[in-house]
Amino acid sequence: MSHVPFFDSPPELRRASRNGEFCGATTGHAPGRIQANLMIVPKAEAFDFLLFCQRNPKPCPLIEVLAPGTLEPLCAPNANIATDVPGYRVYRDGELVEERDEVASLWRDDLVGFLIGCSFSFESAVRAAGVRLRHIDQGRNVAMYRTSVACVPAGIFGGEMVVSMRPIRSRDVARVVEISARLPIAHGAPLHVGNPAALGVADIARPDYGDPVEILDDELPVFWACGVTPQWVAQRSRLGFCITHAPGKMFVTDLEG
Amino acid sequence: MSHVPFFDSPPELRRASRNGEFCGATTGHAPGRIQANLMIVPKAEAFDFLLFCQRNPKPCPLIEVLAPGTLEPLCAPNANIATDVPGYRVYRDGELVEERDEVASLWRDDLVGFLIGCSFSFESAVRAAGVRLRHIDQGRNVAMYRTSVACVPAGIFGGEMVVSMRPIRSRDVARVVEISARLPIAHGAPLHVGNPAALGVADIARPDYGDPVEILDDELPVFWACGVTPQWVAQRSRLGFCITHAPGKMFVTDLEG
Repeated sequence: MSHVPFFDSPPELRRASRNGEFCGATTGHAPGRIQANLMIVPKAEAFDFLLFCQRNPKPCPLIEVLAPGTLEPLCAPNANIATDVPGYRVYRDGELVEERDEVASLWRDDLVGFLIGCSFSFESAVRAAGVRLRHIDQGRNVAMYRTSVACVPAGIFGGEMVVSMRPIRSRDVARVVEISARLPIAHGAPLHVGNPAALGVADIARPDYGDPVEILDDELPVFWACGVTPQWVAQRSRLGFCITHAPGKMFVTDLEG
Repeated sequence: MSHVPFFDSPPELRRASRNGEFCGATTGHAPGRIQANLMIVPKAEAFDFLLFCQRNPKPCPLIEVLAPGTLEPLCAPNANIATDVPGYRVYRDGELVEERDEVASLWRDDLVGFLIGCSFSFESAVRAAGVRLRHIDQGRNVAMYRTSVACVPAGIFGGEMVVSMRPIRSRDVARVVEISARLPIAHGAPLHVGNPAALGVADIARPDYGDPVEILDDELPVFWACGVTPQWVAQRSRLGFCITHAPGKMFVTDLEG
């Protein structure tokens, strides 16, 4: 049985990703550091995408936008966004065409990297408050659903919001809302509590991304805006070219939070 | 002596501005409605400017960014950003070249309008809490200063932050900080309390914009990031072309806040 490495330090995790020594999910690594969804679009679409993020801050809370062609973010000195993520996805005309462990060989001077907040820091804060999260206890990916809730469109970008769902005991719901509301960079307060149908989610047992999770009798399904939204919107909008991280394989920043 | 009209309704104020019946400062009009700094830049520079706002949310809190060529904002149905502001300024290559009462005749399909929060809603909240603001009591413009504090640059946009200053009684400072901190769209908490020299302001009696204001013995000068910053940065960056509102003559939205 192979030993799964654990990385405490963001630079070491990024170096191992760059060298091909690590290609796993980043959850649980570099505790206390902010991890980010990655979206890379050509400069020609960068204004529209930045505007999309500005108009939809719950699914797309911006941590950093790199200057066109730039590989090294301020939030991670000496890092390279084209090599330091454990896995990438390449989309052309809205279709996933390739999964790769680096995109340096595809890099162009007109590409603009967007680092978008993810739910990990909010999950850490919730667990630190003594609330258990079943998908983490079970070592699974969170359950995610496409909804019928339209994002505010911006230029070529438009589509429905993707949400993540976590079953929360009814007595913990208010506390979990309070904790997550304090972390806008991790999607902030929930989008919805309690009724999947109100979001257009027909079958809670069949998530569109990630793994299904059981909801017990005294639990409510709580839904947060999800950082997979821009990937779905890029597909829906048939964006000519973009690169994202592979699900669960985030860009790990040096930022604490 | 001429009668100065008072407009309670944002659409009426905008209509009067459009018809040339009103060309005054908008302070005090449409109480309870959010007023905005206006910045219009060509699409070629819009990504850089949007990124500048995203990186500098205190001086440039975004209320709305219009799609390229669009004149009617969501926050003011039936309005026209090229006619409904009581006064405009046109800059070319970083120089103020013209002050006009409309810019419809200069309009181009590639122009992008940015509506940026201003301090009026925070001033209303402070006064509602019983704190007097001398420049308002005296019917003057607020005192504004260019500082030595660099904004985070973005593409072609870079330069120092402009701040507004209000003398606040020492016993009210904490309360005023709390109130303004709750209103990020109105520049949020102060940038600095107490020491003009720390911001590079050499002579507090000589503001760079607006009117000087006396600071009494039991008062501290309190400094907020100011919406004039993008105008100064556009000048410093020698931006080829942009249009802004004229000082004090804001775009009045329908938004409450």
